[in-house]
Amino acid sequence: MGEKDRILSEEDAYALDRGTVAAILDAVAAGDAGEIERLTEPLHPADIADLLEQIHGDDRKALLRLWRSGVDGEILTEISEGVRGEVIEHLEPDVLADAVRDLDSDDVVDLVEDLRPEQRDAILGALDEGGRMVVRQSLSYPEDSAGRLMQREVVRAPVHWTVGDVIDRLRAETDLPEQFYHVVLVDPRMRPQGYVALGRIMSAPRRTKLTDITEDSFRAIPVDQPREDVAYAFNQYHLITAPVVDGSGRLVGVVTIEDAMNVLDEENEKDLLRLAGLGGESVSDRTWRIARRRFPWLLVNLATAVLASLVIFQFEEAISRFVALAVLMPIVASMGGNAGTQSLTVAVRALATRDLTAANLLRVVRREALAGLLNGLAFAAIMGIVGLVWFGVPMLGVVIAAAMVVNLLVAALAGILIPVALERAGVDPALASGAFVTTVTDVVGFFAFLGLAVAVLP
Amino acid sequence: MGEKDRILSEEDAYALDRGTVAAILDAVAAGDAGEIERLTEPLHPADIADLLEQIHGDDRKALLRLWRSGVDGEILTEISEGVRGEVIEHLEPDVLADAVRDLDSDDVVDLVEDLRPEQRDAILGALDEGGRMVVRQSLSYPEDSAGRLMQREVVRAPVHWTVGDVIDRLRAETDLPEQFYHVVLVDPRMRPQGYVALGRIMSAPRRTKLTDITEDSFRAIPVDQPREDVAYAFNQYHLITAPVVDGSGRLVGVVTIEDAMNVLDEENEKDLLRLAGLGGESVSDRTWRIARRRFPWLLVNLATAVLASLVIFQFEEAISRFVALAVLMPIVASMGGNAGTQSLTVAVRALATRDLTAANLLRVVRREALAGLLNGLAFAAIMGIVGLVWFGVPMLGVVIAAAMVVNLLVAALAGILIPVALERAGVDPALASGAFVTTVTDVVGFFAFLGLAVAVLP
Repeated sequence: MGEKDRILSEEDAYALDRGTVAAILDAVAAGDAGEIERLTEPLHPADIADLLEQIHGDDRKALLRLWRSGVDGEILTEISEGVRGEVIEHLEPDVLADAVRDLDSDDVVDLVEDLRPEQRDAILGALDEGGRMVVRQSLSYPEDSAGRLMQREVVRAPVHWTVGDVIDRLRAETDLPEQFYHVVLVDPRMRPQGYVALGRIMSAPRRTKLTDITEDSFRAIPVDQPREDVAYAFNQYHLITAPVVDGSGRLVGVVTIEDAMNVLDEENEKDLLRLAGLGGESVSDRTWRIARRRFPWLLVNLATAVLASLVIFQFEEAISRFVALAVLMPIVASMGGNAGTQSLTVAVRALATRDLTAANLLRVVRREALAGLLNGLAFAAIMGIVGLVWFGVPMLGVVIAAAMVVNLLVAALAGILIPVALERAGVDPALASGAFVTTVTDVVGFFAFLGLAVAVLP
Repeated sequence: MGEKDRILSEEDAYALDRGTVAAILDAVAAGDAGEIERLTEPLHPADIADLLEQIHGDDRKALLRLWRSGVDGEILTEISEGVRGEVIEHLEPDVLADAVRDLDSDDVVDLVEDLRPEQRDAILGALDEGGRMVVRQSLSYPEDSAGRLMQREVVRAPVHWTVGDVIDRLRAETDLPEQFYHVVLVDPRMRPQGYVALGRIMSAPRRTKLTDITEDSFRAIPVDQPREDVAYAFNQYHLITAPVVDGSGRLVGVVTIEDAMNVLDEENEKDLLRLAGLGGESVSDRTWRIARRRFPWLLVNLATAVLASLVIFQFEEAISRFVALAVLMPIVASMGGNAGTQSLTVAVRALATRDLTAANLLRVVRREALAGLLNGLAFAAIMGIVGLVWFGVPMLGVVIAAAMVVNLLVAALAGILIPVALERAGVDPALASGAFVTTVTDVVGFFAFLGLAVAVLP
């Protein structure tokens, strides 16, 4: 985030500025279709999609009624799932058909995969026979796989061709994809053998063999590979395009870096939200949906909180004798929870970027434990003094200090070992680690503090 | 994360497999330079960099000693900051010079910007006069700006040229950048006017004017624009390349999607880590550094925890009379903390993606509050019953239920309003929101529960 006031500033480099949004809403209120047309004309489809997401549902309806022909395929693909169905509902069948016909196959797949069956059929119906077949086939691949992500339009050349051959062919071709940056080399059985960047083709002599100027970064992607692995490969190996192959190694499509960038961003978002106990949620969701989506995680948290309370319950007698324990005990638990979340977040990120592997696991665990111990000692010293000064009981200072060391050490270990164990068990560590780690730090925190207090206080 | 065991599995699609790492470490132990050469040969530079990060410091030293000529420029650019300085230290000056000479200017900038001055000078000294000047100029732009990110090598063409002109020029040119996908059109004063994809140039007739086949997505980026805004523009508008201009609108470089993807990933990582109270941290950091980096946030958390304890302290007398209060009070605070973190995470992400703007702020706040209220009521019902059954005091059930409603409502409001307020004040909401929100939910949670209890219990 920048230093500037992003919410209100009209100087923000991108994003919709407040004035434009207000002017469009005024035009909607006035029923002035011409003005809406004029105001939206300079906007990028992605910004128009943001506008549709951000305005009130009633305004959205009114806008779509007035601006019947305005929504094109590009805008549709940019709109988030939550609002997409609603927008499609308001479009006339022929506007929808026009909107869809210009899209590449991967965009159509992205558009229809989360729609209700009737809406999906309406869109597929707008395509010609060939297009429909291509989209149907993509939809037959597993959700979130390379097959769903890829585009089917591939510029390819036989592996024995020269630069001159490919230039002549490309210049004769009329039906090239909208965007392409490489030519994929295939053998006679359509198995990709490498790829050549257009920049090299442009600058190499005509007689150069294509196989002499292929890119090092060539990697074929299996069609059923999870899309997060695809995004990882693009980011790790700086790919621009990667051919996608079926079970027998035949070329079936290509994934481009634009798609991979989008997936990487979405996967990062998923991890961020999951760490806070959230499913795929967006600010344009409705109240009821928000409440329902957050409920399960809060319920899990309630269970862990009750578990921690049961620990406290065992020490009722000590607390009633010495109420300072009740005052200080949340500090130990809270510090453990925070330290655990720190270790956990580092571990979840390192697992996602594959920086935490069998090669360094033991060393990382040891370092986490030592760092937890160091901070435990630092905060033990601080809290020992606070406890002593506040309540004037030296032993209370010792108890809270000792409990702090124990809980910060345990927090560090739980923060790293729990996500690793979940990953090994095939569970997304971002999704479930938080609850486990907090349970551990709450239970250990209360138990160590209250248990030690009972043992040493008079 | 996939379904598979990523840590130990050798079937993992990418990442270093355990066997290779072990074999390389064996070769290092045996001092067998030839074997190291053979084993690392098939690995991508990014994977070799990961290897260097993940192995023990002593092994790293031994590996670098044996494999003197192995580290090339590409590996150096892939190595994370924490380890980079150490690796450079172990390279002979001539190996270092060779490694650096082949890199594009943006990679050299990325390599040297975080190095100590002596190391920086050693690397700059390896470049020729022209290269050194280019890198020095890039380093004069603000850190994390487009100027640092861009590459200086741009393929450009006068705005009046035809497809034939540019093809002839490119095919005659010997010093083209390693990767380029577009030709930038400039006016006589070197101001970019648009850009043309190579794919279009390849497929258009020779006499076509370049201005007739420019891409719609053209956007010039100011050289001092923050790099996160650059990444946002690439992701939002699906850019592949964007020209960078200085204050007078003259072309000074280009940013490519590869760089933008990398920045997007790093900015996402920063938000994720900051939400957990972490600075830029990686699993290859040393213990002391880890402990020191986590200390400040834990200290902030300690202050907020002590604040919450002061609230409890006010109710000592009530707790000593009725110790069930001590048992139940952490539940209210914990639920509030979790609900607040949920709202907060959604808000921080929506601010970063610019989906939370002046156009929908009020509606988002209202929805959050309502969702908080709904879940507050749900958990009030659950906890009311738990409180009643556990302690057999109906009024205790009522008190915890009421406190739950209050705290979940406050948590939702704090979770959205605090990050928005911080953003407006020019503070990164990911960095500071967590502490504020938890303080609010702790203080409100304890105060509402204990205060109500004092008011209604006998």
